[in-house]
Amino acid sequence: MLTAHNVAERFKILQDHICSELEKLDGVGLFQEDLWKRPEGGGGRTRIINGQHIVKGGVNFSHVHGVMPETIAKGLGLEPNQFSATGVSIVLHARNPFVPIIHMNVRYFETDTGSWWFGGGIDLTPLIVIEEDAVSFHQGLKEVCDQYEEGAYAEFKEWADNYFYIPHRNETRGVGGIFFDRLGQQNERTKTDIFNYVVNVGESFYDLYSDIFIKRFQTEYSEEHIKWQRLRRGRYVEFNLVYDRGTKFGLQTNGRIESILMSLPPQVEYRYDYRPSKEFELTTQSFLKKGISWI
Amino acid sequence: MLTAHNVAERFKILQDHICSELEKLDGVGLFQEDLWKRPEGGGGRTRIINGQHIVKGGVNFSHVHGVMPETIAKGLGLEPNQFSATGVSIVLHARNPFVPIIHMNVRYFETDTGSWWFGGGIDLTPLIVIEEDAVSFHQGLKEVCDQYEEGAYAEFKEWADNYFYIPHRNETRGVGGIFFDRLGQQNERTKTDIFNYVVNVGESFYDLYSDIFIKRFQTEYSEEHIKWQRLRRGRYVEFNLVYDRGTKFGLQTNGRIESILMSLPPQVEYRYDYRPSKEFELTTQSFLKKGISWI
Repeated sequence: MLTAHNVAERFKILQDHICSELEKLDGVGLFQEDLWKRPEGGGGRTRIINGQHIVKGGVNFSHVHGVMPETIAKGLGLEPNQFSATGVSIVLHARNPFVPIIHMNVRYFETDTGSWWFGGGIDLTPLIVIEEDAVSFHQGLKEVCDQYEEGAYAEFKEWADNYFYIPHRNETRGVGGIFFDRLGQQNERTKTDIFNYVVNVGESFYDLYSDIFIKRFQTEYSEEHIKWQRLRRGRYVEFNLVYDRGTKFGLQTNGRIESILMSLPPQVEYRYDYRPSKEFELTTQSFLKKGISWI
Repeated sequence: MLTAHNVAERFKILQDHICSELEKLDGVGLFQEDLWKRPEGGGGRTRIINGQHIVKGGVNFSHVHGVMPETIAKGLGLEPNQFSATGVSIVLHARNPFVPIIHMNVRYFETDTGSWWFGGGIDLTPLIVIEEDAVSFHQGLKEVCDQYEEGAYAEFKEWADNYFYIPHRNETRGVGGIFFDRLGQQNERTKTDIFNYVVNVGESFYDLYSDIFIKRFQTEYSEEHIKWQRLRRGRYVEFNLVYDRGTKFGLQTNGRIESILMSLPPQVEYRYDYRPSKEFELTTQSFLKKGISWI
């Protein structure tokens, strides 16, 4: 029987593995670790890198448990319960504007009343879209999903399009990826099958990111690219602070603020009514919409 | 009888006056104006300055009307109605880190079912707190409030402490100011009295700001001050995107996004778990709490 403890132990291994690979990739930066405890139960390992190429990144593990606040139980459609939740969350910001922002999350949730489910996803936010990178990223995700279930990629890709979306801008956060939630009892797959899929998603993260990173981290760029990078990062802030469910949940439940907000980019600019140049309109803005078939 | 039209006309004069004074204060920057219409009724005059000293500022007027969305009517405790709302909103960001961010808003709201009220406020967000500036700012506000009603300053000052507060940081946005809402039928004052008070608040804005600006815009500063300025501006973004009711209302009701988000600062930085230096802890961080009696 797969317990929250088993899942958490596997997630810790995932965190260790990704951190050690990312340190090699950056070449200089090392993760600093902050261990924290949650007064109501559980805690986490927040790991932050401020490297030469990955200028701001977080690879966080947490495993928290305790009594579920009533409002949250209600929101999830559950009876009052004791819960246990564990996950790994990653956001990486790179110096080079041709290296995208990437986000990954895998999570597991269970209650003492017998509910359990997995969730997660990976999505890519290029500051400057390079089509072949978006295509290979989506192909890689499709391979992972195909191993799990036929049709899963299409479903989870659409889910990501809808989730990583900024309504007030009428644009997607980036070129999407996959997003899924509540893979649990109502699915036809065994708990072990779902667990294996989620671990595969997590383990695919490093290869998907490093493939793009290695191709782009030495690309030459101008002041104009940096300015555009910082403006686009502003949209990342808008999404995370206004819409992201994980961030909102964390802020509302008195989570560890620095671990939650590690996702925010290092330098950001806001301009009134900034319009992209023709170049950026063509290469990037025009791809920030739902329903693009990258494969 | 004072109508929404009368109030709006007076607010336009206020906007004109403030813009022309701020242009003189900056010495180089001129406001650019965007006129906009709201498909459901009404519109506004958004005015933006990117000057030499006031590097990003907005002085916005709007007057919108139409059918009130049911959810919003419910939230306000009102029957379904036709509404009219007009206001002036200002946020100014300066180059010099010793010049605070300032925010001012005056607004009037009425329905065809006979409800009406005024709201507004002014608050100051120093990146580096200078006590004498905070004191003179609060003294100026007290003078305006004293003309309206004994005890008004204390009440509206406390309201601002509670409103301009970032729960997840357990800190206030800045050194506060005054905030008030729903000054209307339930108050003992006449509509004209309240209107005059609100206009006085609006007209006091320029003097309160320019007093501080003139003292501080030439203060020498270091790279360290700029870094701190950008980190503190990050908190301004956190407040505005996560908590500010006006911003949330605007985003949820499909308002004019660029006018709403003109409040965001020009350059911002986020660092993981940044701790203020002893200097900034002493001069600034220690003042970011509720209940300080500045006068």
